[in-house]
Amino acid sequence: MTAELKNDRFLRALLREPVDVTPVWMMRQAGRYLPEYRYTRAKAGGFLSLCKNPELACEVTLQPLERYRLDAAILFSDILTIPDAMGLGLYFEQGEGPRFRKTIRTEADVAELTVPDAATDLDYVMAAVKEIRSALAGRVPLIGFSGSPWTLATYMVEGGSTKDFRYIKQMMYSTPEVMHALLDKLAQSVIAYLNEQIFSGAQAVQIFDTWGGVLSGPLFQEFSLRYMKQIVDGLIREREGRRVPVILFTKNGGQWLEVLADTGANAVGLDWTTNIDDARRRIGDRVALQGNMDPSTLYAPAERIRAEVADILARFGSGSGHVFNLGHGIHQFVDPEAVKVFVDAVHELSARYH
Amino acid sequence: MTAELKNDRFLRALLREPVDVTPVWMMRQAGRYLPEYRYTRAKAGGFLSLCKNPELACEVTLQPLERYRLDAAILFSDILTIPDAMGLGLYFEQGEGPRFRKTIRTEADVAELTVPDAATDLDYVMAAVKEIRSALAGRVPLIGFSGSPWTLATYMVEGGSTKDFRYIKQMMYSTPEVMHALLDKLAQSVIAYLNEQIFSGAQAVQIFDTWGGVLSGPLFQEFSLRYMKQIVDGLIREREGRRVPVILFTKNGGQWLEVLADTGANAVGLDWTTNIDDARRRIGDRVALQGNMDPSTLYAPAERIRAEVADILARFGSGSGHVFNLGHGIHQFVDPEAVKVFVDAVHELSARYH
Repeated sequence: MTAELKNDRFLRALLREPVDVTPVWMMRQAGRYLPEYRYTRAKAGGFLSLCKNPELACEVTLQPLERYRLDAAILFSDILTIPDAMGLGLYFEQGEGPRFRKTIRTEADVAELTVPDAATDLDYVMAAVKEIRSALAGRVPLIGFSGSPWTLATYMVEGGSTKDFRYIKQMMYSTPEVMHALLDKLAQSVIAYLNEQIFSGAQAVQIFDTWGGVLSGPLFQEFSLRYMKQIVDGLIREREGRRVPVILFTKNGGQWLEVLADTGANAVGLDWTTNIDDARRRIGDRVALQGNMDPSTLYAPAERIRAEVADILARFGSGSGHVFNLGHGIHQFVDPEAVKVFVDAVHELSARYH
Repeated sequence: MTAELKNDRFLRALLREPVDVTPVWMMRQAGRYLPEYRYTRAKAGGFLSLCKNPELACEVTLQPLERYRLDAAILFSDILTIPDAMGLGLYFEQGEGPRFRKTIRTEADVAELTVPDAATDLDYVMAAVKEIRSALAGRVPLIGFSGSPWTLATYMVEGGSTKDFRYIKQMMYSTPEVMHALLDKLAQSVIAYLNEQIFSGAQAVQIFDTWGGVLSGPLFQEFSLRYMKQIVDGLIREREGRRVPVILFTKNGGQWLEVLADTGANAVGLDWTTNIDDARRRIGDRVALQGNMDPSTLYAPAERIRAEVADILARFGSGSGHVFNLGHGIHQFVDPEAVKVFVDAVHELSARYH
């Protein structure tokens, strides 16, 4: 588990330390666009069974590293493991998003929830982290992750995916104290969960705030950002003699980069609607930036993919502090060959900036 | 049709002329949250039949004005009337978004499309505009509208609603010249369509760029903004001795307010993720602002709704140039009583700023 790290570009860039080329990974890099992933998922008996099987979760985590020269691995798991461990009964239906058997709508519902014991209630996640670290053998660092409290709460209150966020916004506006009680329990749970991932071997962590962007600025700060800051404050920041960087990623959060950078996180993830040169001007003196090519660019011809990579690298400019990524998870219909073009382009075209 | 306009607050605010109180209307104000709307829609035999029946479209357009002291009426119609008139075969399935029987994917598909004759191919829309103007009898102004070329194109290329914009982004990246040919035809169509609405009686027009926000900044400018500017340049800007203001609304466009203001439009619509005080600082010297309360606030108790209205009014501050609105269409499950609280609060609480 403590094999020497052979490629630490990703960790160095997150800490804005010098690197030879810009590191790159992709959100959802172990996913449906890879035929070998679809094979393993079928073998596991579905997505959730795959998440709960440490051996197969390890297998799919490593699959994209076999194909591409990625600079980090990310734990294969789901963002909704915490509410599942709280007893909400996560399940997936064919062609649908995630669903919960039980929803959280009232003060009594929130009062009944208990913070899971990460080591025991989420032991399958920790087993996967350990197995992946061991299998990586120091090749690249392993990223752990969690959903943000606000994002987890949206699924718990709505009972699954939603487009209009009806019930959670009702709760937020009508009984803000209940909303805060739920978010506080979730923040405590995420702290324990991520720290246990770090103890188990995660070398950096990312908080996915997928739905922070559906709030107004003031309500984003009150109901999402505040709890992400609580998490950042509660995390173990050094382990195995190295710093453990924290990345915050709020989808559609381009208007709130300054307050995201003020949380004390090491890096802020950008979706593709923000120009990375503007982002660097705004917060690049305080944090590293991660992103931000539109995942749909991977549908383009090779030359166009390379041109988009070149444009983003030029916009970021010289020096460290950039982890290349897509601005959101890779789409399932992308050709695996296009990913190779993308990853190689980042390394090849970024050398001149370092 | 040329009855004297009794309440011109809305038009005056769009031109940043003095008003007594801040005008207010709501996107999708004639909609499913109203029981009388659901009754008329059932009578019409569904949403599309309602759009195509000028008498009933007029009836539902006026329904919210009977209940609330709104300062504008908006034509009841669908954003996809243009592609339907181009022969794509628009239909709606229970619980689904809009669908087209024919999709536009190739250069040949685009070449075959012809710009509709707005007066004849979309005669039912013009008949509705005339009927509504006559029924309004000068009570409040009537807003005409269209989808933006990029937004129309997303539905035409994907064949309906989409989450990942796979085919249109493939077209944009792989054959940008085909994409531009489609967008140019759509821009010509929208110009003809909105001008015909203005000839028929629309006193202001809004362009709904629902999906401009899924693009990166540079691609937004190339594939959405450029064609909205083409439309603004092609519109009749004066009629019946009054100016006809143009409003651009790009959902998730908060990062691009400056370039939206540079198009020559009179007003820019804001969704609720942008703080209206920041927006006024950025572009308020050039255009009026429309928005921007989160529609979900209407799920809140009355006092909270009033507090949110007060906050937005205070952020905008003194003087004209603000049309109050929601940041997106009103949700179907909102209690009609909450809307009364909202509309009355805007008038009551805004007087002190004028």
